Amino acid sequence: MTIQIGDIGRAVRETAYAVRGPIVARAQELERQGREIIYCNIGNPQALEQKPLTWIRRILALCEYPELMERMPEGLFPADAVEMARRILRDMKYGTGAYTDSKGFLFVREAIAEFIRRRDGIEADPEAIYLTDGASKGVRAVLSILIDGKRDGILIPTPQYPLYSATITLYEGTQLPYPLDEASGWKLTRAGLERAYGEAIRANVRPRAVCVINPGNPSGAVLDEENVALVLDFARERNLAVLADEVYQENVYRPGDRFVSFASLLERKGYRDVSLFSFHSTSKGLLGECGQRGGYLECRNVPPEVMDEITKLQSVSLCANTAGQIVTFLMVTPPRAGAASYDLHQRERREIFESLARRAQIIERGLNAVEGIHCNPVTGAMYAFPRIDLPPGVSDEEYCLALLEETGICVVPGTGFGQAPGTAHFRTTTLPPAEKLEQVVARIGAFHAGFVARHARRATAL
Amino acid sequence: MTIQIGDIGRAVRETAYAVRGPIVARAQELERQGREIIYCNIGNPQALEQKPLTWIRRILALCEYPELMERMPEGLFPADAVEMARRILRDMKYGTGAYTDSKGFLFVREAIAEFIRRRDGIEADPEAIYLTDGASKGVRAVLSILIDGKRDGILIPTPQYPLYSATITLYEGTQLPYPLDEASGWKLTRAGLERAYGEAIRANVRPRAVCVINPGNPSGAVLDEENVALVLDFARERNLAVLADEVYQENVYRPGDRFVSFASLLERKGYRDVSLFSFHSTSKGLLGECGQRGGYLECRNVPPEVMDEITKLQSVSLCANTAGQIVTFLMVTPPRAGAASYDLHQRERREIFESLARRAQIIERGLNAVEGIHCNPVTGAMYAFPRIDLPPGVSDEEYCLALLEETGICVVPGTGFGQAPGTAHFRTTTLPPAEKLEQVVARIGAFHAGFVARHARRATAL
Repeated sequence: MTIQIGDIGRAVRETAYAVRGPIVARAQELERQGREIIYCNIGNPQALEQKPLTWIRRILALCEYPELMERMPEGLFPADAVEMARRILRDMKYGTGAYTDSKGFLFVREAIAEFIRRRDGIEADPEAIYLTDGASKGVRAVLSILIDGKRDGILIPTPQYPLYSATITLYEGTQLPYPLDEASGWKLTRAGLERAYGEAIRANVRPRAVCVINPGNPSGAVLDEENVALVLDFARERNLAVLADEVYQENVYRPGDRFVSFASLLERKGYRDVSLFSFHSTSKGLLGECGQRGGYLECRNVPPEVMDEITKLQSVSLCANTAGQIVTFLMVTPPRAGAASYDLHQRERREIFESLARRAQIIERGLNAVEGIHCNPVTGAMYAFPRIDLPPGVSDEEYCLALLEETGICVVPGTGFGQAPGTAHFRTTTLPPAEKLEQVVARIGAFHAGFVARHARRATAL
Repeated sequence: MTIQIGDIGRAVRETAYAVRGPIVARAQELERQGREIIYCNIGNPQALEQKPLTWIRRILALCEYPELMERMPEGLFPADAVEMARRILRDMKYGTGAYTDSKGFLFVREAIAEFIRRRDGIEADPEAIYLTDGASKGVRAVLSILIDGKRDGILIPTPQYPLYSATITLYEGTQLPYPLDEASGWKLTRAGLERAYGEAIRANVRPRAVCVINPGNPSGAVLDEENVALVLDFARERNLAVLADEVYQENVYRPGDRFVSFASLLERKGYRDVSLFSFHSTSKGLLGECGQRGGYLECRNVPPEVMDEITKLQSVSLCANTAGQIVTFLMVTPPRAGAASYDLHQRERREIFESLARRAQIIERGLNAVEGIHCNPVTGAMYAFPRIDLPPGVSDEEYCLALLEETGICVVPGTGFGQAPGTAHFRTTTLPPAEKLEQVVARIGAFHAGFVARHARRATAL
């Protein structure tokens, strides 16, 4: 007999990952039938016309095929790109085709440590940095060392990015949802954290860590310093590790707002007794290099023997892919001011940033103009998570499916991220090009009015 | 308080991965102190002077930086490489920077299906193929759906590649070791499989699947058709899935030997009731592209709803890296006969193949010339797993550590792979360049005699 679905482990079957769930499968089916689909379900900038940064791709190409540098005419690549490629090739030692250290190339980890010093004015240790295939692999590694069964709980925000709920389920731990306060622009509150903690203790679950996503996915909100401090104080008092998902750290759009890293505040407060795991990625920011699967995990206040366990887990998968490691290196190593690649790099980054900021505005304003849709300020990341007023008995899943069928717009129901009981939301990315985004917003507006009227009539008729 | 090692999950702590274990850590330490180390611990060809295939790197470079094709002078790249890069870029749709389908690019999966048809003369379904970051991620995915706790057992060979033992431990399943018969050149036997099966049943463990590595790691042996058939018949009668690790399928050196895929024999026998998972990789064969992390998993006789679970697991990690997917595509899509890249490609492949075959011979003959070392024919893969006669009370771990300290040669103790009780082995790769390999063999010979004499004296003195 072949394997049967009933033979598959319970944890695997119970794992759910909405961002690529049934609505997306339906969208792909419609697309195969010839419908135009606008994918607003996933933060995948380069699938929506964002161009890669030239600096990164030039150097990556030279590293993949170094012989080109011997054969090409002078001037085909800017001198600083060639110089950087030579430096990377020297530091890699064996090129892109060999396994690297389990933790990743040392020269990349050193460059990341330097980046953290520059960004935050704090010390950073290359030996506490792990290169990972995207941030998600780092998150999985940390959750797998923290969870040893149902009794181990992880505090996660509501709404959260379903990587967290999926991975906790897969590793058979317990999700401990704490609320983000929609009324105050998705801020964290001490009361919310304490409530989740207290419920865990009463249920005989041991809270092990608190996860924070800043800037927020799906919330689109940027935490201020007070909020970051609140989490660190709470973690310290309650003896929790902190998982800081900071992959959107460059995506802060509102003038006056500023990204505050957990590492910087941890050091400023001098907390030596709070273990911090922070995650970064090449997939977001201004790079949008999702397909390259680059990212890193930085550990602080994590004992060496615990880090050795992470290294061991990494070693079973051998190493992160080398292209992703190079892209990670280049993310933290831009062209030098005045060098040949500098101006283009600055211009490309500025254009991407300004366009992302503008599109966040289009979404926020456009959705708020619709009666029955309420969208918090989209000040960071690449998402909006608007609340929708639905007739009684109608779910956000039905809403999103109908939206897809009627308009070709693919968004993800709030249920996949978690939401306050009795509320309904959806997550949309802000990533379609501006003109298309205007259409998206207009079509959602028209759809919403029709959908609500239709269901209200149905409710009255019953 | 920070995280403590005692807080880390038991399964994680119990996981062991010898290929990158303590001996390798010590080797790196010695290297930092200035010692020359010859790494024979890991199948990492490009770290030991193997060159990448030009076809692959040229096209990869163009795919990473497509603008180059607009800017470069004619003739810098062969026409068929440029044409292939354009085709890949068209089929990728969004370039290397976007997430792909959870299963990987469809055009790559189609090319793999075509490769299987060509190789085996059987049908293959692109929808049953998953692109993975190296074969190891495919193995992990399959083991994670098959194992739901201690009661689930997986039959693995002794000796085995520690990816299997490590992953089974990590997922809290039970390893069911079956012996490979050293006396007959590491062949499988039905009696050995039945014994392992029977022991599992008596221990109240449910055998779920049998893993086979062919050509063998660490055994260096190629299974004949009879052996492959034996596994399929056993799996069918005992209701087991088959995991076929076929990453060394191109590494078959002995004239007359031939790689027989599990898929081909499964189809020839017409078994519709045996689920087969086979794995391939860009890391081995004649590519040696370990750092690119390319590979695939093919499922046969696996119900769609079970494949959906694998897809879901893949989707939580979003997708395999795009460079690895492109390298996988090019592995199965060589230059056309007569096209500009053809001759060079053939020559590079031939040279690599001949050199690997020659080095397998050097190891086999050289080790067998040492009194007290017994090496089976190295007819496949990239490893030898010689048996060593050691004085009573001396472990292979001590032996390998002493070998490292005295000679700078880093091999892995047999204990890490499993071996018959009362025997001692080590695994060495065949990968150092031929001249260096002659030295390796000579140094092992001199070391062995000295080590054994020293320990025999010590034993007598006690």
